Amino acid sequence: MSLITVGTMAFDAIETPFGKVDQIVGGSATYVAYAASNFNVPVNQISIIGYDFPAEELEALKSRGVKMDGVEMVSDKKSFFWSGKYHLDMNSRDTLITDLNVLADFNPIVPESYQDSEFLMLGNLMPKLQLSVINQMKVRPKLIVMDTMNFWMDVAMDDLKEVMKEVDVLLVNDAEARQLSGEISLVKAARKIMDMGPAFLIIKKGEHGALLFHQHHVFFAPALPLEEVFDPTGAGDTFAGGFIGHLAKTKDISFENMKRAIIVGSALASFCVEKFGPGRMKEINKEDIDNRIGEFVQLVNFDIDLV
Amino acid sequence: MSLITVGTMAFDAIETPFGKVDQIVGGSATYVAYAASNFNVPVNQISIIGYDFPAEELEALKSRGVKMDGVEMVSDKKSFFWSGKYHLDMNSRDTLITDLNVLADFNPIVPESYQDSEFLMLGNLMPKLQLSVINQMKVRPKLIVMDTMNFWMDVAMDDLKEVMKEVDVLLVNDAEARQLSGEISLVKAARKIMDMGPAFLIIKKGEHGALLFHQHHVFFAPALPLEEVFDPTGAGDTFAGGFIGHLAKTKDISFENMKRAIIVGSALASFCVEKFGPGRMKEINKEDIDNRIGEFVQLVNFDIDLV
Repeated sequence: MSLITVGTMAFDAIETPFGKVDQIVGGSATYVAYAASNFNVPVNQISIIGYDFPAEELEALKSRGVKMDGVEMVSDKKSFFWSGKYHLDMNSRDTLITDLNVLADFNPIVPESYQDSEFLMLGNLMPKLQLSVINQMKVRPKLIVMDTMNFWMDVAMDDLKEVMKEVDVLLVNDAEARQLSGEISLVKAARKIMDMGPAFLIIKKGEHGALLFHQHHVFFAPALPLEEVFDPTGAGDTFAGGFIGHLAKTKDISFENMKRAIIVGSALASFCVEKFGPGRMKEINKEDIDNRIGEFVQLVNFDIDLV
Repeated sequence: MSLITVGTMAFDAIETPFGKVDQIVGGSATYVAYAASNFNVPVNQISIIGYDFPAEELEALKSRGVKMDGVEMVSDKKSFFWSGKYHLDMNSRDTLITDLNVLADFNPIVPESYQDSEFLMLGNLMPKLQLSVINQMKVRPKLIVMDTMNFWMDVAMDDLKEVMKEVDVLLVNDAEARQLSGEISLVKAARKIMDMGPAFLIIKKGEHGALLFHQHHVFFAPALPLEEVFDPTGAGDTFAGGFIGHLAKTKDISFENMKRAIIVGSALASFCVEKFGPGRMKEINKEDIDNRIGEFVQLVNFDIDLV
């Protein structure tokens, strides 16, 4: 069962307490594609790149089953560029540079060849563009997952709310859930946000794991305690790619299966942070992923008789 | 199997975003005793109180099986008083007042009637006093659990390290684990701290749960996502009391059983924060606790086939 992923393909410059890189490929759709392509599911990419985006990076993704029919290449502009510096605790970062370049003109078009996709991953983008992709689908996908960020809450809240009405799963971090709902308690925030449209809400808490809410159910998945978090860039997108990749592979969008999908997404994200950019995602194989999922099982596994 | 708990019995004045109280009983040993007394295990209290500590509060604890032979009452001084104000996120607080009062003279004595105790909970106290209690035990307890805080790392690190050599389980929060080890990564911090003495390390992360380390094993227990965190005061001590209470009841100090003990401690702590002071701890019964533990099972329960 195929899936569409919409988002950025970019260059990043990243500085962490452990080192820096001046130019490495990144972007939400890049990370989603690397993660989702571990599941033997066709990944239909929609993005925009400039003349400077490396051909070998496109080939690397194509060789993993990622289709590029929906990736527009602009021959006289540069690719989107983002530069950021992480604080010592790695939970927060400062954006140093945002050069939109080709992204300023991005008008995502869903190619005819993508129309049979039953899963849609809307990476973090201007809400109007996310809505445009939904509206171009001739048959509503079986599952629409949406990522967003605080920036859109600041500048395009009304548009954001319009998209939220149309999606099944919303991904935000804890600060964004509080901003979106006006509630400090994440439980109350979740209830308000689900009332705004999405039947499922995932609240990402970085090194503190992730919560999945649905109706009155809640599930918690930890992040794996790691010796080294080298570069958190893309971890959220990798999580999203693993999440929707697992769902698309299993064709099961029940709450129970979403719990598994969150563990799979968390496992993939735990690899992502081990090297700069998507470097580690290019190396891992099925056995690595299975072993990592096994570590998650060990991490939270307990049996208990009641007091 | 009986347990000794050493720590403060105090008055607190607490301000949270949800309200304030000018005087309510508190103190580490009070919270430990309320939690540990849910397990049909004799709780042997060691503490010091002033003339102003309410008799009905002592009776309330005695009626739960808490022995007071080791609680010294000073007839011409006031009880220890602490006042604090929580920030909006409830994860941090400012100490406004610390009146040591009787605590300045605290010299804990282990009564003869406590000598058969096989479990020892050293609440947060001056490390020299914690060591004195260990040294007074004629037979080394089966398990010694120690709580401490950043303050002792600042002013009495050498003494703290002496105590750490003698204990089995150390309880600290994430910031304290980093301070104690000089490592940012909690995995690396845990390894260094276990090299300093304790075979088991629990790192408490407040609303983000707790980690248990032992050799190369790690276990994670989430905190229950709550609608309202009314007052976090005593949550860490309640967690500790539930942890050691479960171990003393089951007489099993294996890693597997410590995982269960952490879930039990987390369940009790989740009640503690629902009202000011130990108010909620006085109300709950076995059925409430069992139901809450069931919620923890639901929160993290998943079954997964590997990718």
